[in-house]
Amino acid sequence: MIPNDALHDLRTFLGERLSTGKSDLSLHGRSETWHAEMPPDAVAYPKDTAEVARIVQICAAHGVPVIGWGVGSSLEGHASAPRGGVTVDFRHMDAVLEVRPEDMLVRVQPGLTREGLNTALRATGLMFPVDPGANATLGGMAATRASGTTAVRYGTMRDQVRGLEVVLPDGRIIRTGSLAAKSSAGYDLTGLFVGSEGTLGLITELTLRLHGQPEAVSAAICAFPDTAAAIDTVILATQMGLRPARIEFVDAATAAILNAHDGGDFTEAPHLLMEFHGSDTGVAEEAARFGEVAAEAGGSGYAWATRPEDRNRLWSMRHRAYHTILASRPGSTAVVTDVCVPISRMGEAIDHAAADIADSGLPGPILGHVGDGNYHAILLVDRASPEELSAAKGLSDRMVAHALDLGGTATGEHGVGLGKLHFMEREHGAGWDVMGAIKRAIDPDGIMNPGKLIRQN
Amino acid sequence: MIPNDALHDLRTFLGERLSTGKSDLSLHGRSETWHAEMPPDAVAYPKDTAEVARIVQICAAHGVPVIGWGVGSSLEGHASAPRGGVTVDFRHMDAVLEVRPEDMLVRVQPGLTREGLNTALRATGLMFPVDPGANATLGGMAATRASGTTAVRYGTMRDQVRGLEVVLPDGRIIRTGSLAAKSSAGYDLTGLFVGSEGTLGLITELTLRLHGQPEAVSAAICAFPDTAAAIDTVILATQMGLRPARIEFVDAATAAILNAHDGGDFTEAPHLLMEFHGSDTGVAEEAARFGEVAAEAGGSGYAWATRPEDRNRLWSMRHRAYHTILASRPGSTAVVTDVCVPISRMGEAIDHAAADIADSGLPGPILGHVGDGNYHAILLVDRASPEELSAAKGLSDRMVAHALDLGGTATGEHGVGLGKLHFMEREHGAGWDVMGAIKRAIDPDGIMNPGKLIRQN
Repeated sequence: MIPNDALHDLRTFLGERLSTGKSDLSLHGRSETWHAEMPPDAVAYPKDTAEVARIVQICAAHGVPVIGWGVGSSLEGHASAPRGGVTVDFRHMDAVLEVRPEDMLVRVQPGLTREGLNTALRATGLMFPVDPGANATLGGMAATRASGTTAVRYGTMRDQVRGLEVVLPDGRIIRTGSLAAKSSAGYDLTGLFVGSEGTLGLITELTLRLHGQPEAVSAAICAFPDTAAAIDTVILATQMGLRPARIEFVDAATAAILNAHDGGDFTEAPHLLMEFHGSDTGVAEEAARFGEVAAEAGGSGYAWATRPEDRNRLWSMRHRAYHTILASRPGSTAVVTDVCVPISRMGEAIDHAAADIADSGLPGPILGHVGDGNYHAILLVDRASPEELSAAKGLSDRMVAHALDLGGTATGEHGVGLGKLHFMEREHGAGWDVMGAIKRAIDPDGIMNPGKLIRQN
Repeated sequence: MIPNDALHDLRTFLGERLSTGKSDLSLHGRSETWHAEMPPDAVAYPKDTAEVARIVQICAAHGVPVIGWGVGSSLEGHASAPRGGVTVDFRHMDAVLEVRPEDMLVRVQPGLTREGLNTALRATGLMFPVDPGANATLGGMAATRASGTTAVRYGTMRDQVRGLEVVLPDGRIIRTGSLAAKSSAGYDLTGLFVGSEGTLGLITELTLRLHGQPEAVSAAICAFPDTAAAIDTVILATQMGLRPARIEFVDAATAAILNAHDGGDFTEAPHLLMEFHGSDTGVAEEAARFGEVAAEAGGSGYAWATRPEDRNRLWSMRHRAYHTILASRPGSTAVVTDVCVPISRMGEAIDHAAADIADSGLPGPILGHVGDGNYHAILLVDRASPEELSAAKGLSDRMVAHALDLGGTATGEHGVGLGKLHFMEREHGAGWDVMGAIKRAIDPDGIMNPGKLIRQN
């Protein structure tokens, strides 16, 4: 429990922007997925970096946990408060601070969402490409090293964050990185804070790389006789230097669900969906060459288009998939798995997972950002059934174990949070102890997002 | 001085692969540039990771410094031994361990050079793109976060290193990263060790990203009336989405030196030299579009070509520049400056530096990897003149101070070592203390490459 004098100190300058209302605490303890609710003792709504630093100083003085909060879209319980404390909700820090079109950079506050940023950029010819699906905040995306469908071309948050302002666990404020495109000036602190899940400090400002809005876009779809043929196509196209902006895998189970529950008439087979960004001639050439590679690998029904309405039609399978899958089993919740494997082993990894899912009897179609070797099973479980939740967790754990055996990782893009903590020792070995040593060096009292990512004492 | 029993322990298993010969010590204390010779007490030549770990354990037990050594091509005194100790020369650890063409990855030992790797890859259709000029080792390039002419398209070492094996200061061996293209599984230890300049551990294995050898290459050259017109061209082309594999700036002073000392007949004006990688139609389109942008900005004499002999002719200005510049003042040595600024401020930064150099009376032509905002002055100083060396260091320091004022960095690609230590506080503020805290957490006894990068006590 948070001491009363800490609460009093916070209220003196936050006033109504400090909340201890039950529904607010409950909301900030919840996750979009199956993780149990773990509410904080209070929620603070700072409006600038100085206020964030003051909040952290007060919490540090009283040994009170501090947890960052964007919009709560993380999937692994990152923002819950297992040890109580103060959740810092960044909703009032959502400004675009500076657009630097010549440098293709933007400075933003952490509470701005990616869609909010792209709306603000619309007239500039620039865009921020990272698309994890949810309209997450940029601070949260940096903290969890988010990625999504476009990472195959544009990279993950690790590649977009040029610099950060961070409030450290003792309230000091540092700036990492610079406005320069590269630097060899010491340890990469920017890279260390990206993906640190709020365990080393709170991000209060981000300098992000921007990219030109593509002059032209083409989209394509192709069916394949089996997973291996689809993945071989991805490997060959990549080796040839084709650079799709998105390359998504959708399995036969997804096609079947779309046919049964959303009036689709898709071939019940694995598909790849591509999007290409570039010049008019460039995207036409890439789409055509990709079609040749797909045909050689046994693909059929290859179609591509450049007009927006035609592209949307080709991609409808992917656009509709997640919500149609969820709705296909009323009353269910999803356990979304998230592993990433070397691309050479992705075909066997997906088939292995699909067979295990089939044995379990749970519905679990598989979708993947296969240009990166990253894929997800959407395991549908009855909310009221501990047995089904346990079965789904077992499936997820076996997918992770298999991914690690193949040289992959326990999480491609969802992060560690609470949900993947039990795999960190196996994935990193003594490297996990190095992470712990860094954590203790920067946050010796362990107040920043305790219970997450690091070995728990 | 290294204790005799430490030397004895090392000799028991290294035998003749432990050297204390004067010339060998001297060689390993020297730098290619103006830094004073600081020899170690012994040089070890391990042949595998286990031997490296044993060397580090023995040194740790006796508090003896450990310094990594590739080929000694670093420019800021990174590999010198200001406090003596054991230099670990990786020349016998230069194997290609595994090529994974489907994953476009390679596992190598740290003593392999980048040219050695590309020779080994020749038949695979793959290449390793990072080109810092020198034929450096891949371990050294990772340790210093090297980059060079191709970073504008392919990124720096930070972007190529997928994973590392590292011997920690206590002799433990960890593996960072994985074979997967991305991961959100905890702190980015790979990114932390890349650029740590041997101060946190010794890299004993690297997993590196590879890229397809380009199907086609085009090269181009263009003269400009002034620096601003050249830099505006870079900015506009980048905003348009053009992606040169190299884009180099050469100033009028360089053209004048090539004309005077190497029979050139170049226009004595700033030039840009470009290289494009892609398909036949892609590189033709990029070269043509770049030419249009250059013409709009006032460029003249734009020429481009795709045949190797024609490309070499267009690029001869750049290929010959460094050695011709050095030879243009017999008996001189070079102080090579290295800053990186936001691209929007690069034109004024280069002109500011050129004016300061002109005032100094030292020859100091400027070359730059301007797609990244990174440029170098080659300051030619008389080896025997402390005044000239001091003047050159003053010029370099003023270039750094100006770069920092503009939001840039003290070193774009050469690293901190000894030469940029005095700017770390100014560049990073309290962030430098965070680097120090990380250093002490991982290397509490301070045996790894002491005297470099971190605040010295």
